[in-house]
Amino acid sequence: MSISLPREPDFDKAGGLVPAIAQDAENGEVLMMAWMNREAFQETLSTGRAVYFSRSRGKLWRKGEESGHQQQVRQILVDCDADTVLLKVDQKGAACHEGYRTCFFREVGPSETKIVAERLVNPEDVYKK
Amino acid sequence: MSISLPREPDFDKAGGLVPAIAQDAENGEVLMMAWMNREAFQETLSTGRAVYFSRSRGKLWRKGEESGHQQQVRQILVDCDADTVLLKVDQKGAACHEGYRTCFFREVGPSETKIVAERLVNPEDVYKK
Repeated sequence: MSISLPREPDFDKAGGLVPAIAQDAENGEVLMMAWMNREAFQETLSTGRAVYFSRSRGKLWRKGEESGHQQQVRQILVDCDADTVLLKVDQKGAACHEGYRTCFFREVGPSETKIVAERLVNPEDVYKK
Repeated sequence: MSISLPREPDFDKAGGLVPAIAQDAENGEVLMMAWMNREAFQETLSTGRAVYFSRSRGKLWRKGEESGHQQQVRQILVDCDADTVLLKVDQKGAACHEGYRTCFFREVGPSETKIVAERLVNPEDVYKK
């Protein structure tokens, strides 16, 4: 069985957008999941900075452009079906717009949901709401 | 700013399916990304075994039911927007149907794509094709 070596995810198959997972390159923490179109992927590849496609804003989202919390990309991986991207990144500050290092700061258990992380920054300071 | 403590992802907002990332609970390796509907999420929560929704087969996919490569779930996290799930799992064997431990076995670089992992098992042995 031969394994293909695609130069980018299969955006056409995926309808234009693929999920992109950002993982802390140092400690392995999964930081966030966002979406990429072809343009976001290619800009990430060429600049070494994580660029996503914001579905709510309908445009490219250069991570950290507002908050300063950029992601320097160390490695870009694509999965077996070429429809999901994994970025290993150096995260500046908090990945999450809620001020946590990771967006995955809530644990769902059988009987309760609880916060399992500490807030790094106050989002109101970062985004000047 | 108050943080909500949802009991499950917001499946309605997401159109019924949310991405679910499986991460090795021991070494932090991101193993795969699949999809969950409400039923898959609830069964995962109640049984402690990862259950996804297969979009191609249009039904629940109890991970490992064919390959034996099950995922025992140690922790279930939900992201800030309650539209992505992160599972920390004990992975039996290979998470990937291509026989690799992780589905993210290909690295896309500026000039080439290369395989950066070793195959654990021969998929033809596992799935008896």
